[in-house]
Amino acid sequence: MNPDITRERQNASFDVEKLTYILDGGPEKTKRRRQIEALVFSDPDFNEDDPNFLSRSERYDQAVRKSAQMILKLREYGIADPEEIYHYKSMVKGNQQEPFGLHVVMFIPSLRRLCDPQQAKKWLPLADSFQVLGTYAQTEMGHGTHLRGLETTATYDPATQEFVLNSPTVSSIKWWPGGLGKTSNHAIVLAQLYSLGNCHGLHAFIVPIRDMTTHQPLPGIVVGDIGPKFGFNEVDNGFLKLENVRIPRENMMMKYSKVEPDGTYVKPPSSKLTYGTMVFVRSMIVGESARALSKSCTIAIRYSAVRHQSEIRPGEPEPQILDYQTQQYKLFPLLSMAYAFTFVGQYMTEIYHRISEDINQGDFSQLPELHALSAGLKAFTTWETNSAIEVCRMSCGGHGYSRSSALPDIYVEFTPTCTYEGENTVMMLQTARYLVKSYRQAEKGQQLSGIVSYLNESQNRRVQPQAVASRRPLVDINDLSSLVEVYQQRAATLVEMAAKSIQQELQRRKSQEDAWNNSAIDLVRASDAHCHYVVVKVFNDKLKGVGDTAIHSVLSTLALLYAMHGITKNSGDFLQAGLVSVPQVLQISVRIKELLSQLRPNAVALVDAFDIHDKKLNSVLGRYDGNVYENMFEWARRSPLNAAEVHESFQKYLKPLRSKL
Amino acid sequence: MNPDITRERQNASFDVEKLTYILDGGPEKTKRRRQIEALVFSDPDFNEDDPNFLSRSERYDQAVRKSAQMILKLREYGIADPEEIYHYKSMVKGNQQEPFGLHVVMFIPSLRRLCDPQQAKKWLPLADSFQVLGTYAQTEMGHGTHLRGLETTATYDPATQEFVLNSPTVSSIKWWPGGLGKTSNHAIVLAQLYSLGNCHGLHAFIVPIRDMTTHQPLPGIVVGDIGPKFGFNEVDNGFLKLENVRIPRENMMMKYSKVEPDGTYVKPPSSKLTYGTMVFVRSMIVGESARALSKSCTIAIRYSAVRHQSEIRPGEPEPQILDYQTQQYKLFPLLSMAYAFTFVGQYMTEIYHRISEDINQGDFSQLPELHALSAGLKAFTTWETNSAIEVCRMSCGGHGYSRSSALPDIYVEFTPTCTYEGENTVMMLQTARYLVKSYRQAEKGQQLSGIVSYLNESQNRRVQPQAVASRRPLVDINDLSSLVEVYQQRAATLVEMAAKSIQQELQRRKSQEDAWNNSAIDLVRASDAHCHYVVVKVFNDKLKGVGDTAIHSVLSTLALLYAMHGITKNSGDFLQAGLVSVPQVLQISVRIKELLSQLRPNAVALVDAFDIHDKKLNSVLGRYDGNVYENMFEWARRSPLNAAEVHESFQKYLKPLRSKL
Repeated sequence: MNPDITRERQNASFDVEKLTYILDGGPEKTKRRRQIEALVFSDPDFNEDDPNFLSRSERYDQAVRKSAQMILKLREYGIADPEEIYHYKSMVKGNQQEPFGLHVVMFIPSLRRLCDPQQAKKWLPLADSFQVLGTYAQTEMGHGTHLRGLETTATYDPATQEFVLNSPTVSSIKWWPGGLGKTSNHAIVLAQLYSLGNCHGLHAFIVPIRDMTTHQPLPGIVVGDIGPKFGFNEVDNGFLKLENVRIPRENMMMKYSKVEPDGTYVKPPSSKLTYGTMVFVRSMIVGESARALSKSCTIAIRYSAVRHQSEIRPGEPEPQILDYQTQQYKLFPLLSMAYAFTFVGQYMTEIYHRISEDINQGDFSQLPELHALSAGLKAFTTWETNSAIEVCRMSCGGHGYSRSSALPDIYVEFTPTCTYEGENTVMMLQTARYLVKSYRQAEKGQQLSGIVSYLNESQNRRVQPQAVASRRPLVDINDLSSLVEVYQQRAATLVEMAAKSIQQELQRRKSQEDAWNNSAIDLVRASDAHCHYVVVKVFNDKLKGVGDTAIHSVLSTLALLYAMHGITKNSGDFLQAGLVSVPQVLQISVRIKELLSQLRPNAVALVDAFDIHDKKLNSVLGRYDGNVYENMFEWARRSPLNAAEVHESFQKYLKPLRSKL
Repeated sequence: MNPDITRERQNASFDVEKLTYILDGGPEKTKRRRQIEALVFSDPDFNEDDPNFLSRSERYDQAVRKSAQMILKLREYGIADPEEIYHYKSMVKGNQQEPFGLHVVMFIPSLRRLCDPQQAKKWLPLADSFQVLGTYAQTEMGHGTHLRGLETTATYDPATQEFVLNSPTVSSIKWWPGGLGKTSNHAIVLAQLYSLGNCHGLHAFIVPIRDMTTHQPLPGIVVGDIGPKFGFNEVDNGFLKLENVRIPRENMMMKYSKVEPDGTYVKPPSSKLTYGTMVFVRSMIVGESARALSKSCTIAIRYSAVRHQSEIRPGEPEPQILDYQTQQYKLFPLLSMAYAFTFVGQYMTEIYHRISEDINQGDFSQLPELHALSAGLKAFTTWETNSAIEVCRMSCGGHGYSRSSALPDIYVEFTPTCTYEGENTVMMLQTARYLVKSYRQAEKGQQLSGIVSYLNESQNRRVQPQAVASRRPLVDINDLSSLVEVYQQRAATLVEMAAKSIQQELQRRKSQEDAWNNSAIDLVRASDAHCHYVVVKVFNDKLKGVGDTAIHSVLSTLALLYAMHGITKNSGDFLQAGLVSVPQVLQISVRIKELLSQLRPNAVALVDAFDIHDKKLNSVLGRYDGNVYENMFEWARRSPLNAAEVHESFQKYLKPLRSKL
């Protein structure tokens, strides 16, 4: 054990294990998670060399092997609880993805959701036994967010009772679905349904794409891998071009809408049936943000405790880089963010389960709020985390660029969350739509409830941003509840400003749509402020349930840092709205420095509490024992370019070059 | 040619070719650059497939081949002017790096700088003919920025008249030098010199590391590649462990200091001799920021003109995504930044050459200012560009994640500039040191000249941030010169605040060093504001020399956008210092929207003016002809995972899995 990191642990003011319980949701949960994780790292079948040492094809190969083993072992161990599967899977995957992802997360759930009973009886056993390996083919090369724009067609032919599927243009080629390129033999294809000369819009079809015995592509199917990406090397994101591909009528997924044998189209009862899945996945992504950020902070903070560099006082030994104020200012606000997002992730899970219950009881009233919340928080947390991972990486100096640090892998595997499951700007605008709608309801005198209820008050206050700058703010900057209030009022102000911008555009005789587009900057800003408020509020609420004094104290420091740092980073908003004064902004800057010093002795313990096993972290810089350099050297020597002392390029190019000069 | 992009070009209000001349520094320069570029892309020896399709070892191999060819061809064509070599090399490299980089940029210049005449006569011909292929081994695994901390030792043995080199610890292993792992047979090694029992600090030694005939590592040399990184796949960044390696006394680089045969040490006349090179390299990096950002904007803006998505007005065709206000707000400020940094790059080159002249005349008076300027602007432009590339990438939706977009490559090759040649936070603090020193001189009544002369005025104004918020600002937000003034005053305020923070810490009986560290956040912020001011000022100055009315108009719009966007992003600073009022901040937000609309018709033309050849851009999304989708499909089909229809993992894992379930 590195002596620096040992000393750090001795200096902690709280019981790390108890904080881990809070993060896991109780000691039993921690225990069970560790049991499951131990199943993986004690299993020689999952021993592997760093994927960064392999070619793309080898990486895919290794990932398929691991996925196949995982399926067998989960069944062998009888692990079936989704949370437990998640823990097992996370350990197997490490910082990478897995090629069966969409089969499990999208294909099977879609079969459950969209098949009629007869279809379910046929397809589910095939999918569960991996005879059928499937993916979900929605996105096309030219079409993403806007589903109505998809071009793939499925035309019913009553003569043969078949659908004929086509990709009529290059831009209509299905593009990006995970597992489509090489792994899957079936795909759920979203296509525009044509029957008896009429288009009935998007529907889902089960399309066999590869022979179930030989795995060769079927006639009319052009399928393959979309090529190397920024990360996701383990996944064969694929393309699919359909050329007069015929499938039986029964392969249309008919739970809600149907085409009769004669071609008669039967409409679905409701058009909002996929709402739930999207909300669930987006809520999950909030938790993924917290986990990626926790990993990154663990690496950067442990390494900063081990790394010595330069000098603060001349003649003294080089200090740990964690002693530099600039390093603390880079990392501790991110550490506080990691805690904040962890609690927001827990909050989203709770709220999702609560509202799912309501929906099962036939009460859909909370769904719009949950939809708006999950969209906005997905965007807010992924954007923040995306930048934060890179700050962590760069805070490690040169070694952060080495794949041995794991930070490049964490970044490239995480960054797609900003785009998939709803592009972030689009998400922010969806949340804004809900906020503006709520604002207008309050304006009309309706009493709002739930998370937007603060917009009621805003109507009472009638905020005039231009006038309030001189108003005397009443905030107590050292009181977190008071800061929550300030964030709330900032959100209210910005929602109001966005709504007024739309109003002004309409008065300039713009159409509703153009007014919206011309206010989009303000709308995104309002959503961002709303989400920021929710995060600060959730963090504050969480503190109320923490009984342990030492833990309560350190978490309060983190929460205060999170809130204050957000104010200094957005001080213009708060000053403009007259919510804090100029002297208060200066006081907050001074307070932040004090908070950094307060957190310094607990920094390593606070990342230890995330309890991320070395095997899962897979980072030489972030090792629990702090023995960075020896292990970095060992890792480098295993790197494939060192397999031969002399690289073949010497004989091929360097020797001939000399003779020509 | 894609019709959308054709229409964009028809709508431009200015002559693209004339703007290109301005960016290149004149029509003759543009012509010559294009001639040189044509030499590369008409040369079949440089035809290659996408490096992203190759393994690490193949990438290195291909890069060595291209580098060797480049050396031969440059000599064949007689291209010797550094700027012309730069253009040729940029085309050969594309978005990647090259393994001979350090031989040319560091090894040979160091031989010139540090060898005495006799040594130069021996080593330079060997290096020029690539018999000796060298690198510059300074950084160690445990030591980067702080040179005095380096641990490698060179101990003189008078008995044999040799130096004995050692890596006494794991952390002393040389780590990161480019070309060290596999390519080089010599290294200039920085080591602590010991002679007759005394340590004389860091000195440079020429150390043979591989046999010049067999290329095998020499006895006592442990050398290899440091393993995969975030980018830089073409470069064999290496490690070097020295175990009692003996080199003749003559291999110490003796231009300035010496060890006599009997072991007597002769001191160098001055200790600041490497100052110049660092300043030059940092100045160059400012230009690299501009080029990376220009590439990224070219890709994102052209693609946004071709991509159609969603709807603004219901029922109408999907609009170009460049018509969304949010997309313009993401990209146009970055476009303005690309222009700003291009002009700052030109400015740095001019100022560097001017001051080099002075130095040659024995006038060192401007060197500290240039040093501070290059350090700060290196940090400012690389940090800004680093984030900006990712914004460009994510503005392309899913396809930005594909390696075919080139954006991932641009990012990973660029991001190390934030760390190498001086870690950015350290750079900002160096600039801050100059600013605070200048401030104190002004405080004492000295009249400052040069770029910091604004600190004179600040002394007259005696800014009191707490008091000025109520002061009536006099800025005309629509006048760029007035905005330059505002940026200047912001910088002055923040330098003053940082200096006062140090003062306050000292009054709390902190040592000078602790006071500095406890004010580091404020110091970095002051440097950042200073650099921001310089960029806005240089952009404004550049406009004065632009004669063409149409170009002057569009560049003025860009400059105004750059300045206004910076104010809204840092509005807290400007409000706090009382430099703009709350209503003005709101007016600026409205003005920014107008500027976005004004720039919209010229956006594609403005990136066309960067004149980045398709072959150099190597981006399917950024193609000049806008034919994105066909080429993306073609690129994907060439990807190695598609070499076989059925991947071997099917037989190995998927079939067996089924039989077990």
